[in-house]
Amino acid sequence: MGSGQVSFGRTLVVAPHPDDEVLGAGGTIARLAAEGEEVFVAVVTEGKPPAFDPEASARIQKPPAFDPEATARIQAEARKAHGVLGVKETIWLRLPAAQLSETSHATVNAALLELVSRLSPQTVLLPFVGDMHMDHQLTFISALVACRPHQAEFPKLVLAYETLSETNWNAPYLSPPFVPNVFVDISDHLEAKLNAMEMFASQVRQPPHERSIATLKALATLRGATVMRKAAEAFVLIRHVV
Amino acid sequence: MGSGQVSFGRTLVVAPHPDDEVLGAGGTIARLAAEGEEVFVAVVTEGKPPAFDPEASARIQKPPAFDPEATARIQAEARKAHGVLGVKETIWLRLPAAQLSETSHATVNAALLELVSRLSPQTVLLPFVGDMHMDHQLTFISALVACRPHQAEFPKLVLAYETLSETNWNAPYLSPPFVPNVFVDISDHLEAKLNAMEMFASQVRQPPHERSIATLKALATLRGATVMRKAAEAFVLIRHVV
Amino acid sequence: MGSGQVSFGRTLVVAPHPDDEVLGAGGTIARLAAEGEEVFVAVVTEGKPPAFDPEASARIQKPPAFDPEATARIQAEARKAHGVLGVKETIWLRLPAAQLSETSHATVNAALLELVSRLSPQTVLLPFVGDMHMDHQLTFISALVACRPHQAEFPKLVLAYETLSETNWNAPYLSPPFVPNVFVDISDHLEAKLNAMEMFASQVRQPPHERSIATLKALATLRGATVMRKAAEAFVLIRHVV
Amino acid sequence: MGSGQVSFGRTLVVAPHPDDEVLGAGGTIARLAAEGEEVFVAVVTEGKPPAFDPEASARIQKPPAFDPEATARIQAEARKAHGVLGVKETIWLRLPAAQLSETSHATVNAALLELVSRLSPQTVLLPFVGDMHMDHQLTFISALVACRPHQAEFPKLVLAYETLSETNWNAPYLSPPFVPNVFVDISDHLEAKLNAMEMFASQVRQPPHERSIATLKALATLRGATVMRKAAEAFVLIRHVV
Amino acid sequence: MGSGQVSFGRTLVVAPHPDDEVLGAGGTIARLAAEGEEVFVAVVTEGKPPAFDPEASARIQKPPAFDPEATARIQAEARKAHGVLGVKETIWLRLPAAQLSETSHATVNAALLELVSRLSPQTVLLPFVGDMHMDHQLTFISALVACRPHQAEFPKLVLAYETLSETNWNAPYLSPPFVPNVFVDISDHLEAKLNAMEMFASQVRQPPHERSIATLKALATLRGATVMRKAAEAFVLIRHVV
Amino acid sequence: MGSGQVSFGRTLVVAPHPDDEVLGAGGTIARLAAEGEEVFVAVVTEGKPPAFDPEASARIQKPPAFDPEATARIQAEARKAHGVLGVKETIWLRLPAAQLSETSHATVNAALLELVSRLSPQTVLLPFVGDMHMDHQLTFISALVACRPHQAEFPKLVLAYETLSETNWNAPYLSPPFVPNVFVDISDHLEAKLNAMEMFASQVRQPPHERSIATLKALATLRGATVMRKAAEAFVLIRHVV
Repeated sequence: MGSGQVSFGRTLVVAPHPDDEVLGAGGTIARLAAEGEEVFVAVVTEGKPPAFDPEASARIQKPPAFDPEATARIQAEARKAHGVLGVKETIWLRLPAAQLSETSHATVNAALLELVSRLSPQTVLLPFVGDMHMDHQLTFISALVACRPHQAEFPKLVLAYETLSETNWNAPYLSPPFVPNVFVDISDHLEAKLNAMEMFASQVRQPPHERSIATLKALATLRGATVMRKAAEAFVLIRHVV
Repeated sequence: MGSGQVSFGRTLVVAPHPDDEVLGAGGTIARLAAEGEEVFVAVVTEGKPPAFDPEASARIQKPPAFDPEATARIQAEARKAHGVLGVKETIWLRLPAAQLSETSHATVNAALLELVSRLSPQTVLLPFVGDMHMDHQLTFISALVACRPHQAEFPKLVLAYETLSETNWNAPYLSPPFVPNVFVDISDHLEAKLNAMEMFASQVRQPPHERSIATLKALATLRGATVMRKAAEAFVLIRHVV
Repeated sequence: MGSGQVSFGRTLVVAPHPDDEVLGAGGTIARLAAEGEEVFVAVVTEGKPPAFDPEASARIQKPPAFDPEATARIQAEARKAHGVLGVKETIWLRLPAAQLSETSHATVNAALLELVSRLSPQTVLLPFVGDMHMDHQLTFISALVACRPHQAEFPKLVLAYETLSETNWNAPYLSPPFVPNVFVDISDHLEAKLNAMEMFASQVRQPPHERSIATLKALATLRGATVMRKAAEAFVLIRHVV
Repeated sequence: MGSGQVSFGRTLVVAPHPDDEVLGAGGTIARLAAEGEEVFVAVVTEGKPPAFDPEASARIQKPPAFDPEATARIQAEARKAHGVLGVKETIWLRLPAAQLSETSHATVNAALLELVSRLSPQTVLLPFVGDMHMDHQLTFISALVACRPHQAEFPKLVLAYETLSETNWNAPYLSPPFVPNVFVDISDHLEAKLNAMEMFASQVRQPPHERSIATLKALATLRGATVMRKAAEAFVLIRHVV
Repeated sequence: MGSGQVSFGRTLVVAPHPDDEVLGAGGTIARLAAEGEEVFVAVVTEGKPPAFDPEASARIQKPPAFDPEATARIQAEARKAHGVLGVKETIWLRLPAAQLSETSHATVNAALLELVSRLSPQTVLLPFVGDMHMDHQLTFISALVACRPHQAEFPKLVLAYETLSETNWNAPYLSPPFVPNVFVDISDHLEAKLNAMEMFASQVRQPPHERSIATLKALATLRGATVMRKAAEAFVLIRHVV
Repeated sequence: MGSGQVSFGRTLVVAPHPDDEVLGAGGTIARLAAEGEEVFVAVVTEGKPPAFDPEASARIQKPPAFDPEATARIQAEARKAHGVLGVKETIWLRLPAAQLSETSHATVNAALLELVSRLSPQTVLLPFVGDMHMDHQLTFISALVACRPHQAEFPKLVLAYETLSETNWNAPYLSPPFVPNVFVDISDHLEAKLNAMEMFASQVRQPPHERSIATLKALATLRGATVMRKAAEAFVLIRHVV
């Protein structure tokens, strides 16, 4: 810590839905991979339907349907995106393709606990607990249980990333604010991040939507400028043990 | 914004249970209606039993029963109260007459999303996420999803109101505090608010209970005095886009 | 209040799982009992398995099983521990031996409401809402509903205690922080507390685990030193009416 | 603590300016005095000019002048008000009749430290650190130093009171919020409080100003209703040692 | 409020140092002026030296010197920038060209109080109290006193703006966080804002510094995207009375 | 970062008064030195009088006097303590031996800026901004200015340490809470820390005072147990750039 060089070691990135890992930590993944670290991505749910249609989803009065075709498409997109970034392995937890809030807490806990036990990552990157989407909140909460520092082995560094189209839409001053205190220089890896995001054709939106390439770029510029770097990804530290 | 005149435009007030909309925003509704705005009230659940009886509800070990008669009575009360205030239309979402925490998150989201899509309100008033009752918290959370600013159309102004007998009973400094930053002058509409509340005969309590006419009056006096008005309703701003 | 002497009166301690009441308030219970107060302990769930085994629990992909034998053992431990402290009566709410998050909110509310109505405690001690374990959070939330100050009778003093191996493992600055403002001198009762904890043979861990005797002792020393006492237990005040 | 009876013991109320002690704790003082406790009031500064005139004070470009006559008048008012409440002794710290922010921190510390050492109060009531007026903030900060629990003797109970025309005017969510957790029943002492406030003829304002009798009454009604009492004063607990 | 159209009315922007008003609210100023509103800018201090040189300033061990030439230059820059934006009048408060923390609090209060009294703005825009620079904090605090809602006339809308190279450098989770809840669409005025900033040749820095044109642009893109606009400026609401 | 090994690099510890650096970071200093890093300690003020005597200091109504003899003694103590820990160099900033709040903000800024410029530390450890003592708060604030990430070179890692007899005595939930997120294992260096503290004979107190060897030990045990270590020092992360 403090060396100015990333030493995250073996790293696990947990994404509630495919593309969150790229939005929040794509540049960091690319940098870690380029520096020779092993990076794993765990996707908690089966994915989002390709075209989010509020009226349709409102009409059906139940969780968005995930037809096999859409699921296959988004998983194919993820494969390509992860290839661009240099991800070592992608794990699909395939939790019931509904919302996590309808899944038992113990089930999510168990899935993440098993994963952390098996991979023994030194560093874990999580979605932010203050994100608007309950899947993000519940993923964070269960992952934190899985990272409890009460055994011989546990992840030494836990960070939360920000997700455009989630983190900025929650309730100001009422939900936990994302105020970053860790900045990873991704000047040499922003291009890889944007390329990876473009692989998610079903998820990318046109500007001025937050989930657009232009906004991702603006965010990287801003986070970088805060610490005099051309581009950065920002995180909130949850715990670091040295 | 800033003009000293209310320009909320077409307004939707979301109430977890009938009477919350009057407790929190009755004066504002009356003022908006008097100034020619269309105000809609959406009641999320079927209502509360007329006489809240903790021992009874404890005995049965399950959600309070909502017998049809009680439901009919409270809906009749709401009709009269809304008439007093000048509400244009009352929408009953009739979510399962249990607690919202036993209803799937997606169902509540969908119901509110459909409503916001159909009515296209410019302004939405919500219960406060820090209220003690989980129905209030979950209504807030789902409504915020329905108000996401990610499409061509979305509500430009979102505010949270306070509810006597909920907002002040949560855990100080541990649940989100209600610290108002928007004050609506209801000096000319306090009487209408109190009249409307009196229509809810099954809900009003005698002082010194918080849900009494005397306490409502005291709150209006206090909120007004903070900004040199005879009476006001206070809100927490969630988002305003101009 | 303020007298420097404890005047909690009839006291109810609510524990999500057996041993939480000792970890958080064992010394206070012993002191109250020694000073002649009646202290009741309500245990919300059936208990924890004797040996927490993450890999096993991960494998089964569902809530930890509570075999009858383990349940019997931990209840026997609790009996001995409560005897050491001088607890007047232990109430087992026996909520479904799963996680509370899979139990209906209304059920937990009702169980605690019935308890508070029946015992009419003057003081109630709760687990902390910011603890990592959802059972702790949900117990706090339901108990607060049961303590609402809206009837002739209600608990006048409500405090939250800290639990080693829960309170310090949540997300810094994102979950509610435990910052104590009430300190109970347990200089003469620390030994009883540690003895009671030792009765929970299935729960105590070896140092440097947080749930060890050595850590409990260190915490008591620290909390005591903050207010110039040899040993203390610390609490966060929720509400006090005088 | 918890007994439902006030047991504050020997009490010191610290007021930045004369009248703050009545606005924030007048009913509690009257109740304590009626129950036989000794209550001391320490007024930190020399007072406020009788008629607050922003244009005048703006014109002179320096701290408001405190002419001897105005000072004498407000002190006479305080004498009468304190007589109504049953204050045992009023101490005038006479800190430089400017703003506290121009007085050395060590001077304010020393004055309050000497006071606390000499009076050995069991309970201390302070203005709220989140009040808008810097004198309130600095009084709180210095008093807290004077109450440090690091010697054999120190105040066992420290509470902060709210001040109409200060507490509600600071910056929502940016300055510390006043979220009360201690409520003192003043049903039998509200009249004394209002009478005492009326003695401060130079400070009372007409409604709908916050510093009016009508607003004080509304606040007492609201704080009372929150805990099912006809009238109450509300406080934030800083520290309690039992 | 809520109309989707800016109705700030007569507006006063308070800047601790010249250029803060452009960084934080330049687009909003341009939009207001274009829509026919009168916008005033008050600059509290005499300005910053053209080239900030930490080693030099460290060497001299006292507040940065403001030589007359540098002051003249930055004021000329401000004139040009304000011309670009359409500011109606620029007021120089010329507070002692040292740090505000060495100026008496009453002096700053008085200067701002006189200004607010004289201009009677309906809307006031302030620097953010959580900014790193003490001048920003003290300007905010004094301006809030000047805006107290306790007279017949007072500003109805008070907002705080963010300042690149100040707001993001304070202590995460320890100083008040900037979490915007008001967004002003400046899609048609971003160019004017950037042009105005370029007039401040002595203050603009090269990327990746935060105070560069590129970062300003990125921030406008991000704030806009959050609410589906091409460019926006974001604010935190302090108080709104309607 | 994340490697489980400390890689703070060249480190600067800033102490408002001699002994704060040992209380907060003595074990970390010893570990860094043992691992070959260069550690500098900067003491901001001239020190504290050997025997803190509130009545005396109250009597004199001004900042505690620092007689040359006491200053010499405490500096001698610091020399010995720093020798034990392996500090490379101790820098005495000798700021006016009064309270920092009477020193111009620019002076403190300049002194720390010069120091950081000259030493170019990779890591900086600061007192906590939420500590009760204003000297701690002001040291933090000025040091943060000195660490601004706006030049080619700046400290990459900034952490705040806790100080027994300061951090736990501020106002719960009203001043910034110390909720640690970085834990440094000092199992092999606790003894050195305690030895160093014992060198400060003029500052150490007897238990149960917070500034005693027994309390230091308890704190190290507790902080260690939270992360399954025999002993640890805990910090709050301010900023990390990698």
